[in-house]
Amino acid sequence: MRVFFKLALKAVGASMAGLEEQVTPAAEALSVDELVRDVTLAMQEGDSARAAEIVKDLRTRDLADVIELLTPENRIALIQALGAAFDFEVLSEIDETVRDQLSEALPNELLAKAVTELDTDDAAYLIENLEDEDREEILSQLPRNERAILERQLEFPDYSAGRLMQSDFVAVAPYWTVQQVIEHARETDDLPDTFSEIFVVDPAFRVLGSVDLSRVIRSKREVLVSEIMETDIHLVKATDEQGEVARQFERYDLMAAPVVDQNNKLVGVITVDDVVEVIQDEADEDMLALGGVGDESIGASVASTARSRIPWLIVNLGTAVLGSLVIQQFDATIEQMVALAVLMPVVASIGGNAGTQTMTVTVRALATSKLGAANAPRIITREALVALINGVVLSTIIAGIVFLWFGSGMLGGVIAAAMVVNLFAAGLAGILIPLALDRLKLDPAPASGVFVSMITDVVGFFAFLGLASLILL
Amino acid sequence: MRVFFKLALKAVGASMAGLEEQVTPAAEALSVDELVRDVTLAMQEGDSARAAEIVKDLRTRDLADVIELLTPENRIALIQALGAAFDFEVLSEIDETVRDQLSEALPNELLAKAVTELDTDDAAYLIENLEDEDREEILSQLPRNERAILERQLEFPDYSAGRLMQSDFVAVAPYWTVQQVIEHARETDDLPDTFSEIFVVDPAFRVLGSVDLSRVIRSKREVLVSEIMETDIHLVKATDEQGEVARQFERYDLMAAPVVDQNNKLVGVITVDDVVEVIQDEADEDMLALGGVGDESIGASVASTARSRIPWLIVNLGTAVLGSLVIQQFDATIEQMVALAVLMPVVASIGGNAGTQTMTVTVRALATSKLGAANAPRIITREALVALINGVVLSTIIAGIVFLWFGSGMLGGVIAAAMVVNLFAAGLAGILIPLALDRLKLDPAPASGVFVSMITDVVGFFAFLGLASLILL
Repeated sequence: MRVFFKLALKAVGASMAGLEEQVTPAAEALSVDELVRDVTLAMQEGDSARAAEIVKDLRTRDLADVIELLTPENRIALIQALGAAFDFEVLSEIDETVRDQLSEALPNELLAKAVTELDTDDAAYLIENLEDEDREEILSQLPRNERAILERQLEFPDYSAGRLMQSDFVAVAPYWTVQQVIEHARETDDLPDTFSEIFVVDPAFRVLGSVDLSRVIRSKREVLVSEIMETDIHLVKATDEQGEVARQFERYDLMAAPVVDQNNKLVGVITVDDVVEVIQDEADEDMLALGGVGDESIGASVASTARSRIPWLIVNLGTAVLGSLVIQQFDATIEQMVALAVLMPVVASIGGNAGTQTMTVTVRALATSKLGAANAPRIITREALVALINGVVLSTIIAGIVFLWFGSGMLGGVIAAAMVVNLFAAGLAGILIPLALDRLKLDPAPASGVFVSMITDVVGFFAFLGLASLILL
Repeated sequence: MRVFFKLALKAVGASMAGLEEQVTPAAEALSVDELVRDVTLAMQEGDSARAAEIVKDLRTRDLADVIELLTPENRIALIQALGAAFDFEVLSEIDETVRDQLSEALPNELLAKAVTELDTDDAAYLIENLEDEDREEILSQLPRNERAILERQLEFPDYSAGRLMQSDFVAVAPYWTVQQVIEHARETDDLPDTFSEIFVVDPAFRVLGSVDLSRVIRSKREVLVSEIMETDIHLVKATDEQGEVARQFERYDLMAAPVVDQNNKLVGVITVDDVVEVIQDEADEDMLALGGVGDESIGASVASTARSRIPWLIVNLGTAVLGSLVIQQFDATIEQMVALAVLMPVVASIGGNAGTQTMTVTVRALATSKLGAANAPRIITREALVALINGVVLSTIIAGIVFLWFGSGMLGGVIAAAMVVNLFAAGLAGILIPLALDRLKLDPAPASGVFVSMITDVVGFFAFLGLASLILL
């Protein structure tokens, strides 16, 4: 995958006279790496005004990238140099570790200003990890209404829909006409910046339906909202887990979904662009978990990274020692024929690789609902057959290599047989272990690898050394 | 991650009288697994009418799931039993392998009907893999205009923006008033079903800007489009790679982007909901690649699965044999002290795990643009330090275990030293190899694992056996 690192500067607002000009092409600007280099250089020379000048016309996401890649001290210096020109939206785009660093380092007045300008969900992210005292001080500087909304948002659990939603939405009554809806939109000030769906509610703010904005615009003025509203809508509960919400959006191709509280009262809206980030995060989590890493940010410190990775390594140390115990049972055999020691890691290693292949496919299929009780037997059979076929292919190759290397057809036969056995075990472990964990309501992504490699090590060493001691000695 | 398997039946269209009723909650319906079981049972009893009855009120995505989980024969039988009640949208939701199976098995007349009803991008997916003869027959049954659009779409390369885009869009002139836009929307029939953005074009259909629908609705009737249009827009070229487009949507929080051809003429629009699937697919691809699997569908046959997985296993066989060659250099040492054979896989295995951790984080950071030339030195230093810290921790543990097990402090010291060396090598390999591959414009996800495990095997065996032969014998 190629990294997308070229950016576009904001096109200057085109006047009527300039309409013929094409929109600024994305490829002409400096890359993020070049910008970071220039900013760092300016900072080193103590010229923070020049540093601010370099980044001041960047798009939000690009400035966020630049800030992420700077050193912690330069991040603060750059934001302070930007002063009023700093785009607070950057704080909602930035990596969590960096955001927490910034919200601790920046003065509370600046944060209070940021909170006022940001959407409620982003404002909540900004202050959620602050110390109580700082958070209180910032909240106290907000208008009463905004403060109440933000406090409510912070009451929802982490990673809940309530944290993800926008508190601003457009709600209308079913007996309104299209004309009334348009007038309401024209005259009301505290509507969201952009919206594509309007919700229809009863007096208790329970959701009756939704109307897509394009439907509104295409309907005649006198048509009633109740006539054009869609009633087949997905309600999201504010306490629903964000990953679950994302899967619903994906499943049903939703553009927006109303969020309701425990009384079924409409409290916010989640739009598909909020969900994109959740999908990416969930995929990240799964991928890292499969690689034996917890939820780790690239910006995390040495100490926290080392701490988060060591548990999995210790568990693996345990399973590796288990493999050693198996080998020890055959130490007399190995003493008689040291070629066994030379070859045994091959059997275990290929088994581990084949098991990882099956496990990866299985974990991903479970996460994306492609694997369920209905097709599990068919997929298990397929994996077993694939394991046997590949076992035979690889056995033939290794038998040939061993015959040429050690000049022993018997040794070649033994390693081939052990390889078939271990690949079959690997295939079954690779699918059955994640399925079993999922059935036990455990997340298969982080835990499967340990068990799969344990089985391929133990079976690999046992099959190879056991067969060797039976046949060769 | 929990699998989302409970579904909602379509809520029946609420009449005005029924407005007080709440929308059907999602939890009451049958699960996909239960539906598949019931349908399979009905099919076994030859009662395909009952099977059709069971699924006829399902949402598109849920019916797609049921069809995916059925056996190939039952899939065809169910679709034929549904007849006119079959929702063709299912074909655009379904897994690619299953879609190809269906489009080969279903009669061409049915496919032609499906193509007419589907959006152009989905219609293109449906017939792209058919044999030329069948595709021609289906295309010949389409109205001329639709046929031309579909043929143009099929001319764009696979995985290009042109294949992902919708050919229907709303385009207006900059000198139109809001009133004219609304009237145009009310009176034109061939607009997309829903849209949230309107594109402003010149007479040659070059994009001048875009207007969010909520902006239209909130503006006074006499306001000109040119006054409210956004000119800072992201143009997507029809030949752009879909993954690249998805990263732009994510980066800049886009809701929709205009797609232009080589003459900068507007030819379509991509909306964020199209992109959600691409993001998911890209994450899938990366995850499978890290697990040593190509782009593999859970529905693929035994033969194609075995074939797609074997190359990686053969490459790994090669690196494992390389490890064996290292061990062989020390066969005299092992003969003298068989405990070395018992313990050596531990050193290699933990190194492999630690290398995989670093590699996974690195590959993911590269894919999501969190790692670039600007912060690479800092991250490399961090990984080296993490590797040293965890190396020392794990070495202490294994030294203790070995001392208790074999009663030799020297052997414990040797394995501890080898472990520190190998974890350091693993940490560096885990970050430097993906970075190098990325610099060479190669995809780091599939290739990194082989090199990392090669290094941890070779270094692990060499450090442990080499130190042992120097110190212990």
